[in-house]
Amino acid sequence: MNDLEIRPAAPEDIPAIVALLADDPLGARRETPDDLAPYTEAFERLAADPNQHLVVAVRDQRVVGTLQLTVIPGLSRRGATRSVIEAVRVHAEERGSGLGTRLITWAIDASRSEGCHLVQLTSDVSRSDAHRFYERLGFTASHVGFKLSI
Amino acid sequence: MNDLEIRPAAPEDIPAIVALLADDPLGARRETPDDLAPYTEAFERLAADPNQHLVVAVRDQRVVGTLQLTVIPGLSRRGATRSVIEAVRVHAEERGSGLGTRLITWAIDASRSEGCHLVQLTSDVSRSDAHRFYERLGFTASHVGFKLSI
Repeated sequence: MNDLEIRPAAPEDIPAIVALLADDPLGARRETPDDLAPYTEAFERLAADPNQHLVVAVRDQRVVGTLQLTVIPGLSRRGATRSVIEAVRVHAEERGSGLGTRLITWAIDASRSEGCHLVQLTSDVSRSDAHRFYERLGFTASHVGFKLSI
Repeated sequence: MNDLEIRPAAPEDIPAIVALLADDPLGARRETPDDLAPYTEAFERLAADPNQHLVVAVRDQRVVGTLQLTVIPGLSRRGATRSVIEAVRVHAEERGSGLGTRLITWAIDASRSEGCHLVQLTSDVSRSDAHRFYERLGFTASHVGFKLSI
């Protein structure tokens, strides 16, 4: 396999990112790869916020992975800045290749560069393989994640 | 009891907020109310970020509650903006008064005003009372929350 690059997402990457989001047991019900307009608007909101880092992993000029890292300042834990990882996706053909580890390692390193002392993420209770993966990378399943659609 | 006001936190509220963060089984080990310098620096980072909303609940000119709401744009779920609630604290003398509900209801309303379609939070697995509280407010414990200190 050729070299992998992890770089900030560009507007041209939107179709490939949405395809990754949709190619997922949960995402298939939630995404509309045939209608990119809402994603393009959301991309503009992301690009305008310096605390958002949407990245893609690219191999052979093809987007094969993505994640979003958000930097969140706060008062708790002695004013610790934390980061939140969202929307981690790895192309089906790349699973087992170590790309997930590369992406999360990138996010941890970027969090450190941004002065964060804590990295956090939530994973749907149904994704048990993902839970083992995060624990292998040193994360602790210390919290319950609550969601409310509004 | 007199009227309660929920308003943006001001620098003068920092000591009271830190006291609330520290008056907690988990926070007691993590906070330093005798050394406010790191909190003052963190407050400046929060104030500079338009997607951060640190609020206090005030009754009789006394800070009796706090929470932080963060607005996070994103591509997933058709470009849905979400919000994250962190650092919810209610003064010991106010517990059972409905203040927690007032704070979370404020956060949900503010999230709606900011165009969010999802509100999320994580709660330490040891806080079982908090879990029942969030479920009563309509949240679903659908996720596992992972943390990594760096």
